[in-house]
Parts: sequence; structure tokens; C-alpha cells
Amino acid sequence: MGKKRLMVPAEELDLSAVKYEQEKVKAPHLTGFGLKLFVRMIETPMIGSLIMSFLKKQNRVVELLQNTAIPEDPMFKPEFPPQEPEPAVVTLDEDGKPEDRVSLALECLPHYNPANCWSGDTNHPFRYWKIRDYAHAYRSGIATPSVVVEHVISVLEEFSSKKPPTPLLISFDAEEVRKQAAASTKRFEEGNPLSILDGIFMAIKDDIDCYPHPSNGGTTWMHEVRSVSEDAVCVSKLRRCGVIFVGKANMHEMGMGTTGSNPNYGTTRNPHALERYTGGSSSGPAAIVASGICSAALGTDGGGSIRIPSSLCGVVGLKTTYARVDMEGSLCGGGTVEIIGPIASTVEDVILVYSAMLGSSLVDRLSLKPPPPCVPNLLAYESSDIMGSFRLGKYTEWFNDVYSTNISEKCDEVLNLLSKSYNCEVVEIVVPELHEMRNAHLVSIGSECLRSLNPDCEDGKLERLTYDTRISMALFRSFTAADYVAAQCLRRRMMYHLLEIFKKVDFIVTPTTGMTAPVIPPSAVEDGESDMQVTGYLMRFVVVANLLGLPAITVPVGYDKQGLPIGLQLIGRPWAEASLLRLASAVEELCPLKKKPVSFYDVLRS
Amino acid sequence: MGKKRLMVPAEELDLSAVKYEQEKVKAPHLTGFGLKLFVRMIETPMIGSLIMSFLKKQNRVVELLQNTAIPEDPMFKPEFPPQEPEPAVVTLDEDGKPEDRVSLALECLPHYNPANCWSGDTNHPFRYWKIRDYAHAYRSGIATPSVVVEHVISVLEEFSSKKPPTPLLISFDAEEVRKQAAASTKRFEEGNPLSILDGIFMAIKDDIDCYPHPSNGGTTWMHEVRSVSEDAVCVSKLRRCGVIFVGKANMHEMGMGTTGSNPNYGTTRNPHALERYTGGSSSGPAAIVASGICSAALGTDGGGSIRIPSSLCGVVGLKTTYARVDMEGSLCGGGTVEIIGPIASTVEDVILVYSAMLGSSLVDRLSLKPPPPCVPNLLAYESSDIMGSFRLGKYTEWFNDVYSTNISEKCDEVLNLLSKSYNCEVVEIVVPELHEMRNAHLVSIGSECLRSLNPDCEDGKLERLTYDTRISMALFRSFTAADYVAAQCLRRRMMYHLLEIFKKVDFIVTPTTGMTAPVIPPSAVEDGESDMQVTGYLMRFVVVANLLGLPAITVPVGYDKQGLPIGLQLIGRPWAEASLLRLASAVEELCPLKKKPVSFYDVLRS
Repeated sequence: MGKKRLMVPAEELDLSAVKYEQEKVKAPHLTGFGLKLFVRMIETPMIGSLIMSFLKKQNRVVELLQNTAIPEDPMFKPEFPPQEPEPAVVTLDEDGKPEDRVSLALECLPHYNPANCWSGDTNHPFRYWKIRDYAHAYRSGIATPSVVVEHVISVLEEFSSKKPPTPLLISFDAEEVRKQAAASTKRFEEGNPLSILDGIFMAIKDDIDCYPHPSNGGTTWMHEVRSVSEDAVCVSKLRRCGVIFVGKANMHEMGMGTTGSNPNYGTTRNPHALERYTGGSSSGPAAIVASGICSAALGTDGGGSIRIPSSLCGVVGLKTTYARVDMEGSLCGGGTVEIIGPIASTVEDVILVYSAMLGSSLVDRLSLKPPPPCVPNLLAYESSDIMGSFRLGKYTEWFNDVYSTNISEKCDEVLNLLSKSYNCEVVEIVVPELHEMRNAHLVSIGSECLRSLNPDCEDGKLERLTYDTRISMALFRSFTAADYVAAQCLRRRMMYHLLEIFKKVDFIVTPTTGMTAPVIPPSAVEDGESDMQVTGYLMRFVVVANLLGLPAITVPVGYDKQGLPIGLQLIGRPWAEASLLRLASAVEELCPLKKKPVSFYDVLRS
Repeated sequence: MGKKRLMVPAEELDLSAVKYEQEKVKAPHLTGFGLKLFVRMIETPMIGSLIMSFLKKQNRVVELLQNTAIPEDPMFKPEFPPQEPEPAVVTLDEDGKPEDRVSLALECLPHYNPANCWSGDTNHPFRYWKIRDYAHAYRSGIATPSVVVEHVISVLEEFSSKKPPTPLLISFDAEEVRKQAAASTKRFEEGNPLSILDGIFMAIKDDIDCYPHPSNGGTTWMHEVRSVSEDAVCVSKLRRCGVIFVGKANMHEMGMGTTGSNPNYGTTRNPHALERYTGGSSSGPAAIVASGICSAALGTDGGGSIRIPSSLCGVVGLKTTYARVDMEGSLCGGGTVEIIGPIASTVEDVILVYSAMLGSSLVDRLSLKPPPPCVPNLLAYESSDIMGSFRLGKYTEWFNDVYSTNISEKCDEVLNLLSKSYNCEVVEIVVPELHEMRNAHLVSIGSECLRSLNPDCEDGKLERLTYDTRISMALFRSFTAADYVAAQCLRRRMMYHLLEIFKKVDFIVTPTTGMTAPVIPPSAVEDGESDMQVTGYLMRFVVVANLLGLPAITVPVGYDKQGLPIGLQLIGRPWAEASLLRLASAVEELCPLKKKPVSFYDVLRS
């Protein structure tokens, strides 16, 4: 029982009176024996619900969801009013052939100069091999997919043989990858590559189907209850373009965590600092791109799961608008916050992969009328001042609420550069009700996830999940159906607030995460850990895009004092992926990474 | 813990293998001391959840929602594919003036012959005074609203002074009604009535705002936390047409029951048998129309709450398509199953009231694209064989699963008459997964209701609710957020099944209720009762239209052996209110009620 709180209708909220509240998560940090004991306790019927009630009260969850009269009606999934078309874009036909879309996207990229990559000058500040670098190598006879595949396989096998295990992939079949590479090589020999993506190596997160691999979602048992007989829709589009799939990338079990910890298979290590987490849940996808082994990977993002590891690993990760990419053939279909998106080392490569994979039958099924998908015409923006019109919304108190000031300082530098070089205007904004928003997101994603896992957990699989997943499950089980509906009312409020903000600015800019890659405590290697404070820092800026279905991207902008990557997050208007990619590309150009990251060749040479 | 059940995808379900399962509700029938004790127990933290778990297991709720892998994605509110336009209708402009719509609807009605009502022949089988009877009386100087209002007031006051109290209205101000009548009389004197509805008496269910009355939803305290400063949108449309509102009609507390029991104010009695329930939750609205005091009333229907009392009281009740009528200004806004609809003594009057009140801003907000609203052109169908094309779907085993065979026999007679007189074809259908559908509905309506009541209940109002409401609340609190999402997956399945059925038939026909008006046990007069078996019989056929947002109507078709009214339910395609009203009008014509019901004048004379 508690006192009733009244919220004024969203449109009557006085933004000038809103005070930023620092997020303070109150929960124990648990590893080893303490972790196991805690899980045992919260799974004990009466005691468990008492502990959960206590923790939820401490974190003001009950107050928000049960004691608050929210004047708004529920909004059960992101719903947007019609949006203006974006300027200087190339429209893609989402029902057309993926290879045609890639080819259109390719025409929008700046001129390719092989000398940038192939000069042989090892002091040249090149970064990763881009897709066009591989494409050039294949077309000019410098390399073939069959040559590259052997390097890829040897590196992957080396990663897999480490102790403790730190696998990038958790399903991998060297012979199967060799076959794909041979087929691609043959196409090049015959002069018939399928697209610019032919022979490009990609990894697929373990919660997206990629035949003939099982989809385990990072668990040890999902293949026992769900078999895979074909590619997910978005994977099949990439395969049609000639992409070579190396296997299923490691992840935080069932996507229920943001560090990337996975005691089932071993935790993927951050290529920038092997004693640290990659971030998650798309740990494998981000790390395999960051270490230069694959040009791109697919991840899923229901609560930052693409953007967090991309940021911590220093690569680019795109969260698309809700319902822009088909979820058919993933473990996360049917949710209201999750999407599938690309991770790559550069914005250019994200554009190419995204243009191939986009399009969703959900748009028809929901009778949605989104604007057609498009990619930025980077040639157009190079020769004009389109960027000058961009207004960047910054909520300074939120922006600065990070674990180490390094992060916000570095992100601020980028904003200054954008103002100077592109006349972007930084506009101070207020994003109200962030605490409410986080809870609405937690209840939504947790309940949707629990719904799909419930039948198996009731059937005895719960005890085969990792301890931190079981803590999450216990929390999710404690949410009532009325909490779920209340969370959807908060979603409608937040949508109102954000659409108001987007009347004043074109993008919202934040650091991607509130901290850089955290250390893996030695006590967490074997059984994982539960550290809600770290989770809070990692998720601080990401979930608004999930709850409201907005597009967002993380771009690496530098390093902290320990040399760990820092990412800047850009959040765009509904459906405005193209503008987002254009701004991201400008940010990338302004922040040439001074430190050369671990590349494919570094790995090969080591 | 329980064994995992697998459902095949809806489209692969073999309908020929579906077996009808009789609904068997397992719960104790409670009144008096037993009821109070039970409520005390289920509100005790640990014991309460144990009891609820047991009851839910007994009724296979857990099995369906937690142990079953449902292949469909959630559908959080009714979503329909585009529908064919209906034949022989008159389209109404939902953004236009309500009085213009009423005037268009009026033109669609058969010729009015005052002699039918005004012949003075007391043996003439007239039924209630229809709206056009009053309109004729006012226009020809036979009566004025100011004369009629005195009769209305004296009858209402008589009802209010009974012991134990059995009020039709729970908020009533004679002076205020007199003022409305005087204003209407003045308009007639000046020759400027606002519409055919001017001077027509209506009652509004206590969960719909009708200024200056409070909206208590049948509780004793809602006015303390929610004030009413204007009419609900649909009420204001009726007021603009000149309707006189007599006050707020009694109801089952918060709409959480289907008998109409209300220990707070006294339970409204069935005009056909005063020792029996009216059905609910719109008890007052149905009874005030059935006793001839008001021509029409507005009710709400989230789980049969218009159709059940209309059927039990022998009047016509329309449940409109989800989102067809504006919910702004009602206590049930923001839900996914509830609508506001009209109750009247004849289909003709339902058409007139419906045409005035329809239209919803929700359609815009949800970016829905429904066909425009329309009413049947009854003149067109009288002179043609449009009816001949109607195929009526009947699921015989469900149709016959009633408490007394009287009900299904009487409904069957009507189907035979429709076949003979109108060439309608009765088609045998199978409606699968009715048990799943009921549970999905229960979880949806319960959670949405609990969400809106939670802040007040947490604030100490729970103990001021009636005992059976508190039992419902305890049940609703026991649903988890994942149950809610699973229920929405079942909603998508059922939508598939029903849309498949509507490829083969135009309407689904069932009895409206599985039993006629139940007796009020003397032990339930003071504190109410909980009788889930009765609830099961009353709700047996109604909730499919709520879960899926389909239009449905009940038409009285006769009486059982005890002289209690029996209703036939017609369920239509999405948005097809006009066809539904056309068929209802044919049913009404085929079933002239042989027993003259209690009319306004019976009451006046008594």
C-alpha cells in the first residue's frame, strides 16, 4: 500500500520545472557463491517475492507503476504520426531485390580510392578493411574469398582454443564456411559476383536464424526445443547478395544482460582490452567486427544490445526504427522494443549492409504507412551545406551523468566540431521522466521475453539458464499484468515528450554509454555476475530509442584515458535512418581514430 | 511447474478434429459470511496467492498462459484487414453534425404510422413507445416533454423509495431533469426541435460522464478522486440532438460482474421478475429501458455488459466495433475490449441513437482506416431480397451449451424463420479454442481495469469496494505481465480463426446468454455474492466480440417457460454495424413478442 501519486497530462507538464534525477540503482553486486545463494533465495516461493518486492520498492518501481495515476491511455507499441520526407536521400524499394538496393546505396558513396587501403604504407592512418576494400581485392585479383577464408578460420580457431574459453562464435563449421567461400570465388572467376557484398564475411548473433546453425540465443538448450530449417528473412537477403556467414556469434544469454557475460560458452573479450567485457548483449558480433575478422555482423537491440557493445568495442552499430527490418526467423519476433540491425567498422559499411537487409512484412500486417526506406546520398551532402540545417538536442545534465567525465568531454568535443565544420546548432533540451521511461522499458522487454521463455522454463529449463538470467527472470515474473498496461501508458507519455522535442531539434545526442568497457571480475568468469550499477551505467542513454521505436546509431569518437573506446549516440526521428547515417558519417569523418585499432591484419600478424 | 504444451500455428489447425469442450468453472459459490471470509483470506499476502494459484490451476489458466508455446505474435488490440463495403446502406459523416446524421438515419426507416401506437386499442400488440411515437406526440401537441417528465420523475422516485433499495438510477436530480424538459418543451413551442431525439428521455450508465452528475462507476468513492466537469463525447453529441438525460444508471460495481449486483446502492431488479437479476454490468440502463421509463440508455460493454442485461431484460443492445464510438469521458477509456453502445426497446431506436453518438478520435490517433460508419437502409431491404444473401454461421455444440434447452430451442426457431422468410442459409461452423479465448479476454479486461484502479486501491480504497469486486481484483492481481502478453498472442490466433469463419458466413449466431435471468439469493442482497458458474453461463457467448472488437447485437426473441426473456446474439464482421442492424431488424419483425412487456404506461397505471 502506498500513497497515490497523480501525474498531470503530458502536454501540461512544465518542462522548466523538471529536475534531472541521477539514476541510482539499489541492488547487490553478486558473483560466485553469493550469486548462487541469491538465485536460490529468489526462486523460493514466498521469500523470493518478498525480496523482489523489497528491491522494487527501493528502486521506486512500485511507486511508478502501481501507485501513480497516469492520465494517458496505453500505447502498446511504437505509433508515430506521419513524418516529413528526408532531404538528399536515395529511396530504396523494400519489396525489390536486395542486390539492387545495395547497388543503389553504393552509388551514394563517395569515390573509392584503392590507394587509401592498398598503398602499402603501414603508417597510413587506415582503419579496418572496408567492404569496398575487399570488393576491390576480389575484383582486381589481389585476393579471393577462398584465400581470405583460411585466415578467418585460423584466427577463429585460435580464439576458440583459449583458456578460459572466450569464443567469438558459438556455432562454427570451418568446412561449411570454406564451401561458401569457394562458391563466391567461383562467381568471381566467372565474372558474376552477386553484389558488392559478394565474398564479404559476416557473423550472425545467436538469436537470429542462419542455416544450418542452430539458434541457441546463448543458452545451452534452445536447439532442443526449436529447430532451424532456414535463414531468418534478413539473413536470406544478405545471402542472396553473396555474403559469407562465418557462424553464430556469442551473446549474453537470451539477450538479458548488457555486459556480454556468458558462462555457458565463455565470455567474449573486448579486443581493446582482453580483461574487459565487450558489452552486450551482441558481444560476439561487436567483437568479431572490432577485431577485423568480419566486415559486419547482425545483432539485435531491445535495450541497447547493438549500441552498447559497438560503443565499448569502438565500432558502428545501427538500431533501426521499429518494424523497419523483418524479425521473422529471430528469437525476438513479436516484441515491441527489439529490432535487428547491422554492426560494422564504418558508417559506409553499415549503409551497404542495411540497404540489403531492410524491409519487413510487419509494416503490412500492422497496416503501418511508413515513408519508404532510404539511405543518405553522401555525394549530395559533400557538395552542399545540407548538414548546416541540423539542430542537435543536448540535455546537458543527462549528457554529463557518466561514470568518468572523459566520456562526456570527448562527446562534447565532437559537438563542437560539428558546430564549427558543419554549422550544426546545439540546442539545450529537457527529456523529462527518464526514470519512468526506464521502468516502462524494463517491464515491456522483460514481460515479452518471459512470455516466450515461460513454457520452456515451466518445463524445467529454468535451472539450465545462467544465474544472472535467472535473476532477471525472477524480476520479470514479479511484474503484474496491470504493471504491463501501466508501462504502456508511460510509453504514450514518453512518445509525446519526444515528438515535442523533435519539433525543436533534428537529433538527440548523448554518449552511447555511461561508462567504457568494464573489467570482468575474476570471480565472475565461471558463473557470471549480477551488477545492476554497471547495467545502469551501460543502459543510461539507450533505452529511449527502444521504448519508442526510434532509430539510433553509435559512432566511435575516441578513447578514454585507459585507451578504451567511447561512442557517441545519435537518436533520430521515426523512420529517419538516412539522416541519421548522414550525420553519423560526418561524425566519423571529424573523428579519425588516432589509435589504430586491432585489425584483421594485426590479428594475422600476431 | 508443468509440462510444456505446443500449439500448432493457427493456420495449420485441423478444424475437423476440434472437439467442443463444455465450459466448467471450478470456484465456490459464496454469499454472506463465507464471502467475507474468503475475501479476507485472498487478501492475506501468502495465503491469498496460494488460493489464487490453486483456483487458476483448477481452471487451466496457468496451463494456457504459462505452459503453452503460442506460435503467434501478440496482437495488443483488435486489428482488422480492410473490409468490403456493406450493401444498401446510408453512409454517415462521423465528423459532421450529429443531428444531420440522425436525420439521415431517420430517412432510412420504414414509413411511420401513428395509428400503430395511438389507436387507443389496448389489445393492439404494440410494445414500447418508440422514439418516433414520442416525437409524434410532441409534434402533434398530444404531449410535451414537460408533461412526460412528471410521469418519469414520479416513477423514478417510487423505485427509489423501495426497501430494500433497488434503484434504477444512482444519481438523479428531479429539478435538473425538469429544466431539460422545459427547455425541450420551449423548443417545440417555438417550432425548433433540434432533431427527432429532442425531448427523448435517456439514462447514462454510471461509468460514462453526464454533467452535472458524478461518475462513480457504481462505487461509493470514485467522485472523491475524479470530478466530472463536462459530458463524455458521445453524451454531448446526444445532448446536442435535444436528448433529456434523467441521470446516472445503476451498474455492477466498476463493471466487474455480469449479474448487476450492487450492495452499495441496492441491486436493480429485473422488470420481468423482481426477485431476479437484470444481468450486468449495465443493469440500470437495461432495466430503465425495459420498464419503459426511458426510450434508450447508454451502456458500456467490455465483456457482454450491454448485451447480457439487454438479453435478460428483453431489450435490444448493440456492441459496436472497437474504436467506432469515442471513449473520451468514460471510466473505461484506453482499454482494448470495451466500447460504449446504445440500449433501446427496438432496433429502430438503436439505429437513431447510434447514428447520433458514433465517431471517435481514436480512429485518427491509431491511424486506423475503417470504412465510414453507416446505417442500414431499411427501405431498400424491405423492397428487395438483399437478406437472401446472408449466411448465418452456427456452431451447434456451442449454441446448445446452455443451462436450459428453452434458450437454444427458441433461438433455433428464429433461424428457421430467417431461412423461410428471408432465404438466409444456416451454415455449420466450428469456433476453435473457446477456452483460450475466454482466458485471453479475462486477462486483458482484468489487467486494463486493475491498471486504472491500482493507484486508488493502493491508496486505501480497496476496502471500500464490494466483496465480489475484491475477489475479481485479487484474481486480476495474480496475472503476470507475461500472462498479459501471452493473452495477446491468443488474441491474434482467435482473430485468425474468426476472420477465416467470416470468409464462409456473414454472421455468427448464438444465444446471447447461456441462462435467463438468475434469481437473487436472499443471502446476497446485503453483501453481494460470488457465483462463477452463473458468470460462466451469462458470459458464454459474448466475449469473442470484445476480445476481437467485432460488432454484435442482442435482440429479444421470446420467453422461457418462466416468462423470462431470451435474446439472440448476432456477431458481425469488423465495422459491419449496418448489416448487423439490418439482420436484427428482420429478427425483430419475425419475433413479435407475444407477451406485452412492462411499458411506461403499465408502470404509470400501476
